[in-house]
Amino acid sequence: MSSHAPMPAAERLAEPMRSRWSPSVFDARHRLTADQLGDVIEAARWAPSWGNIQPWAFLVLERDGAGHDVLLDHLSRGNRSWVPQASAVVLAAAKVAADPDDATDKGVKGEAESCYDLGQAAAHLTLQATALGLAVHQFGGFDKDAVATALGVPSHYRLLTGIALGRHGDPDRADDDTAAREQRERRRRPAETFVHAGAWGRAWSPATTGSTR
Amino acid sequence: MSSHAPMPAAERLAEPMRSRWSPSVFDARHRLTADQLGDVIEAARWAPSWGNIQPWAFLVLERDGAGHDVLLDHLSRGNRSWVPQASAVVLAAAKVAADPDDATDKGVKGEAESCYDLGQAAAHLTLQATALGLAVHQFGGFDKDAVATALGVPSHYRLLTGIALGRHGDPDRADDDTAAREQRERRRRPAETFVHAGAWGRAWSPATTGSTR
Repeated sequence: MSSHAPMPAAERLAEPMRSRWSPSVFDARHRLTADQLGDVIEAARWAPSWGNIQPWAFLVLERDGAGHDVLLDHLSRGNRSWVPQASAVVLAAAKVAADPDDATDKGVKGEAESCYDLGQAAAHLTLQATALGLAVHQFGGFDKDAVATALGVPSHYRLLTGIALGRHGDPDRADDDTAAREQRERRRRPAETFVHAGAWGRAWSPATTGSTR
Repeated sequence: MSSHAPMPAAERLAEPMRSRWSPSVFDARHRLTADQLGDVIEAARWAPSWGNIQPWAFLVLERDGAGHDVLLDHLSRGNRSWVPQASAVVLAAAKVAADPDDATDKGVKGEAESCYDLGQAAAHLTLQATALGLAVHQFGGFDKDAVATALGVPSHYRLLTGIALGRHGDPDRADDDTAAREQRERRRRPAETFVHAGAWGRAWSPATTGSTR
């Protein structure tokens, strides 16, 4: 993919993790094929799932298609400049309780576990899209209650994110803020601040491998 | 990876999503290298994150190393036969509130969002491990409160899963239940039961692509 934002020290990762980033410039003339949508959904479908409950649901909103205008009406200010150009947005929802209208529904493990599994399915969808050469950018900034109501998401599902999919556009055709946004250096916390070895508070590093035995 | 459990219709997926499955037979003589642990952690580190909060933490427990016996003491019955043989278990925890001892800590977006991001980081870790040819199997069945207390996980983090990593073992050397467990056909719900097109309740299929415009 072109115009990759800087991503220090990720060269060691396998594809498609290595090439994944979140572009903000989408080509508004591009449309997804049925095969592309089918493949990204299939990847989500095969994500790991606690007890195989698969507590996830997706709502496909194609640009200029049904439901897309509802999402655009409820985007946060920061997302209004770039989300509309994406070929489609896949909304991701976690099942957080049993279906109240289905006495046979055994429900879910818990809200935390459902959101964790939804994150895994969204990551698989995102990585499959990356492997297909698509641009993909997850976002949380929209009025989820309003969108859920307008699109009929039932109350035992919790809408969490949108996943914008499409073809990376020409930054020279984007407004300055959007073009600059995707070129910001990508930063992550150092591993030693969030990885522990053997017990909490003992910072993990490659050198600790084997040392606690 | 050998002895792959059946996974119908996933041939279309890109690697490493296509080859990912959850083996239950691990080679108890195998140890992870520092590079292998470093690579899987680096993959988690570069997972997508809401507002780049990165609300995740990991605890590396090597077999025969510090903390490993604590986990083994608190495994659910179904996990006692196979988890102990894995070369390491990486425990995954979501930051669910601000650090009460750090007045500068801005906290997190919310528990649901943190668990979603932890799921994404765990998926990246799992896929990187798959790409390295490692066997990897996530599990939730252990006494999380007891393990969190014993290993010092602070109360603003929520322990959710364990990720067993190692080398796939010889099923003929495993007990019958464990060997059978990993050969069960993998099943997933059909896409039309959890993917909607344009609005909730309109089942998505490849053929709906373009039809709602």
